[in-house]
Amino acid sequence: MELYAEVGFEQATVKEIAQRAGLTERTFFRHFADKREVLFSGSRQLQEVLEQTVARGSVALSPVETVTAALLEVAGLMEERRELVRKRQTVITLHPELQERELAKLASWSQALTGALMQRGTAQPEARLTAEAGVAVFRTAFERWIATADPQHTLRQLVSDTFDDLGKLFARP
Amino acid sequence: MELYAEVGFEQATVKEIAQRAGLTERTFFRHFADKREVLFSGSRQLQEVLEQTVARGSVALSPVETVTAALLEVAGLMEERRELVRKRQTVITLHPELQERELAKLASWSQALTGALMQRGTAQPEARLTAEAGVAVFRTAFERWIATADPQHTLRQLVSDTFDDLGKLFARP
Repeated sequence: MELYAEVGFEQATVKEIAQRAGLTERTFFRHFADKREVLFSGSRQLQEVLEQTVARGSVALSPVETVTAALLEVAGLMEERRELVRKRQTVITLHPELQERELAKLASWSQALTGALMQRGTAQPEARLTAEAGVAVFRTAFERWIATADPQHTLRQLVSDTFDDLGKLFARP
Repeated sequence: MELYAEVGFEQATVKEIAQRAGLTERTFFRHFADKREVLFSGSRQLQEVLEQTVARGSVALSPVETVTAALLEVAGLMEERRELVRKRQTVITLHPELQERELAKLASWSQALTGALMQRGTAQPEARLTAEAGVAVFRTAFERWIATADPQHTLRQLVSDTFDDLGKLFARP
């Protein structure tokens, strides 16, 4: 991420990335298919966190509460790597093809949440809607977090606030 | 769309597509950058419908009501081309690279709705969340519509029902 910030994503070679990380190129390719994948392996790990959090959530929680808990867990992990996540986002924002892959990863979070909810017994239509809306909330909160310089606004707090906002905005009279 | 269904998306050549539509290749390329774009020009037109519907919506409507009206308008237009839209979806589902472009188009619907709401005076955070959640509702309803064989379940009705479902699921106690 340092190298992408210093020389730009296009300019950085796998050789340089591997050197900076103290790895051989061969070891690099054992972990990543290409230099784009460096930016997205974290998303896959976070997807597993989402699935695990839903799977071990109390059965007393509603689907919405379960998805909220899972996305708050992920928000906490991203907050711990605040500077790294922000540097990564700068790289992604500059490259439309990376933005498309980012959208695909978020769609796969939604699929994973849907599947995990269904395994707990939630019916497909409700599971899908809860997951899609949860990811919409997360994406909105994430943009708010990227836009703020104030470290008091944690991603966790913003995700929690945005779930509240959604409830208020879409409440049926 | 007929040709894509008959010979497959990869096999269909621009020459054949143009022939089937009674056009020269040259005319084809005046309208579409490539054969993928044939599948997505409709999304751009629908995006304009979204923007126009928000822009001319009564100021008495809330942002959520405005976005709902815009997405119902688009749902009605898609319902009129039910068979075409379903054939198109079959092609997209078979090709991951088309799915990625579809995700990008939906993200651009959300951006367009956000911008149109802000032009009516809605603050950015509320506009963004309303647009993102609205698109999440639409996407979920669209999947339900694709999955059902019953022509009584119109996309318009499903979008309306899914907005109601969201309101119920996320209501704050």
